[in-house]
Amino acid sequence: MTRHPKKLDFPVSQVRRYLEPGPIVLVSSAWQGKTDVMTLGWQTVMEFSPSLVGLMISAGNHSFELIRQSRECVINLPTTALTDIVVGVGNTSGADIDKFAHFGLAAEPASEVGAPLIAECHACFECRLHDDALVDTYNFFIFEVVKAHVAPSPKHPETLHYLGGGEFMVSGKIISRRSQFRPEML
Amino acid sequence: MTRHPKKLDFPVSQVRRYLEPGPIVLVSSAWQGKTDVMTLGWQTVMEFSPSLVGLMISAGNHSFELIRQSRECVINLPTTALTDIVVGVGNTSGADIDKFAHFGLAAEPASEVGAPLIAECHACFECRLHDDALVDTYNFFIFEVVKAHVAPSPKHPETLHYLGGGEFMVSGKIISRRSQFRPEML
Repeated sequence: MTRHPKKLDFPVSQVRRYLEPGPIVLVSSAWQGKTDVMTLGWQTVMEFSPSLVGLMISAGNHSFELIRQSRECVINLPTTALTDIVVGVGNTSGADIDKFAHFGLAAEPASEVGAPLIAECHACFECRLHDDALVDTYNFFIFEVVKAHVAPSPKHPETLHYLGGGEFMVSGKIISRRSQFRPEML
Repeated sequence: MTRHPKKLDFPVSQVRRYLEPGPIVLVSSAWQGKTDVMTLGWQTVMEFSPSLVGLMISAGNHSFELIRQSRECVINLPTTALTDIVVGVGNTSGADIDKFAHFGLAAEPASEVGAPLIAECHACFECRLHDDALVDTYNFFIFEVVKAHVAPSPKHPETLHYLGGGEFMVSGKIISRRSQFRPEML
């Protein structure tokens, strides 16, 4: 069994710490008693406060309707401990299987949204749809992170970054250039 | 002097290979005889074909008007060889200095756009504005990559991924799960 990292409240204005480096995420959703989870690599931070994140969610994905109807989701951050689950979730459809059951993922209740948290992930960001202006034209959803849960350890989790073609880059060493930053840029 | 990696044409539909892992990029621009370059970490791939990329470009940045007026830019991919330049470019303003001259960057002519390529970078993606629907509301630009130049070696360049607070994650090892992918997902 994969462990369930104990998570603490984290400031929503600082989720860029986990999303800006560009990791693959697992997006969970719920609507009318059904849940789903999808693997997603096309995401960007858009604002600190409100804490906005843009997600490209292909309309062909089973999660698309659950997210569009509920106007909510949870962005979950998996580490390399979940590599095979990340791949499995990305290569199956919630139209065919219950992904939480099939992959043995533990769904925990969120506090602000109906979509479940994935207990096995290092961090979980509860999101509410902020702007659907580009949903019909690009399948691009602008979400506000309304609640963030992050495991305090390890400080730098080993994340997965997708290259296409079945290959992932694993996050590497951390370097600091803090002394070269103007204070207002930190 | 930093070397100038020799770059070859690269299929624009495959730029996700370099952008989806979430690296910091240097965005170069030109308008009415002025050039600028900015450091940017808030980007996402949006479509394979046309090759669309979304960029959050803060209106407070000197590059913003050059990009908005010219409706063009080049997304340049720096490696760790350029770490201090990436930090310097991000902590200065084109309103005060000519960044190409100040940081000793070589501007090479692009083939499809007026913005210059940065010779020191591993890859350069020439972009034309595809949709400005969210520029006024979010400073979010949807660009089409119209020409891509990539150095064939190294195959996996050491890229920088920003965490905030002056810290970067450096790209690490590559792992493959290709055998677990359905063919149509590759």
